Amino acid sequence: MSLAVVALSGGMDSCVAASIAKNEGYKLALLHADYGQLTEARERRAFDELADHFDVPSHKRLVVPLQALKLIGGSSLTTASIPMENGNIDRDNLPNTYVPFRNAHLLATCVSWAEVIGAGEIFVGFVEHDSSGYPDCGVAFVKAFETVANIGTGINTNVAIKAPLIDMTKAEIIIAGMSLGAPLHLTWSCYKSETIPCGQCDSCLLRLRGFEQAGYIDPITAK
Amino acid sequence: MSLAVVALSGGMDSCVAASIAKNEGYKLALLHADYGQLTEARERRAFDELADHFDVPSHKRLVVPLQALKLIGGSSLTTASIPMENGNIDRDNLPNTYVPFRNAHLLATCVSWAEVIGAGEIFVGFVEHDSSGYPDCGVAFVKAFETVANIGTGINTNVAIKAPLIDMTKAEIIIAGMSLGAPLHLTWSCYKSETIPCGQCDSCLLRLRGFEQAGYIDPITAK
Repeated sequence: MSLAVVALSGGMDSCVAASIAKNEGYKLALLHADYGQLTEARERRAFDELADHFDVPSHKRLVVPLQALKLIGGSSLTTASIPMENGNIDRDNLPNTYVPFRNAHLLATCVSWAEVIGAGEIFVGFVEHDSSGYPDCGVAFVKAFETVANIGTGINTNVAIKAPLIDMTKAEIIIAGMSLGAPLHLTWSCYKSETIPCGQCDSCLLRLRGFEQAGYIDPITAK
Repeated sequence: MSLAVVALSGGMDSCVAASIAKNEGYKLALLHADYGQLTEARERRAFDELADHFDVPSHKRLVVPLQALKLIGGSSLTTASIPMENGNIDRDNLPNTYVPFRNAHLLATCVSWAEVIGAGEIFVGFVEHDSSGYPDCGVAFVKAFETVANIGTGINTNVAIKAPLIDMTKAEIIIAGMSLGAPLHLTWSCYKSETIPCGQCDSCLLRLRGFEQAGYIDPITAK
């Protein structure tokens, strides 16, 4: 069995990406980034519960602080004094929940870990279109980062970065997750709250619309 | 005056890169990474003294912990239980001082900061040939990362990554630094010691050979 690093935030998309990797026969190494997001405690709980669900041993779980992102700020996700804009998933401009270049830090961490543990694949749950429009989530970004990864690591390290959801809608992701038995009931998406999803932020709006379009009840609000 | 982020380790190369940026008329924003390297305390002192020398105000100095690299390990620079190989600057293989994909973490941090503070240039002291042969120091890596940076940030962010020393020999770097009045006496290069340079590690060997070839006395050993 080949080893794959999966970037697992605790949200729905990365949970489905992990389920896809598992379904493709990979042994999972799960990486969670703490970049100072305001709901990190709840996301970390989701990560732990997902890692238990996927039966990943502790030495194949890695929680990394990306303190640079917190220190640099510039986002309502990391800086409490920047008020989060109301959710608006049809906007054209970049919402202030954008964390500047976050996914480059995340992917750099995945690549370093993959190099050390000998994983040939990295799975991420990035979504390009049915999303908040962050520039570090698209196909072009992933491809360009894969090039950087293969130039910037040792000659024996070859990594493929797989983003199996990147062209899907949220509804398609939910349907794919349901068909694989992905543990969506353990995930957390809300940007604002750590108890009951606010239902108002971009992340809640995308999740709500996705479940509605997919024709399923969201297990975390059904409880 | 345009603003440039300079990645400043405290070593000689990044000091000369900072001097070049200053000489080109940029206002400097200095970034130092603490990635758990064993000699960080000494490098940090060098960073502080260099930042004072360049008269950079405190809000334009950023020290970031890159804890992921320490947690992931895989290098004798960050993991005390991996014995450092003897210096050998003519070897063909990758020395165990290579920190897996470190410079991607460093550049990602520079790009995030540049995006938030509105800097259009990033200066690094990477050296491709007259070096230990790390894969994340070459022209191809820098160019590929610049592409990633411009894809993965907001539409109004454009960053150029400048590596003015990348094709130079160490002797040429020293000569360039001397001609610009770069404060080489404040820099620190040794990988092993924080008091007197060991003279044996790759970094010392490269520095010693550089000064010899340049025909100068190294101010840190001359004391």
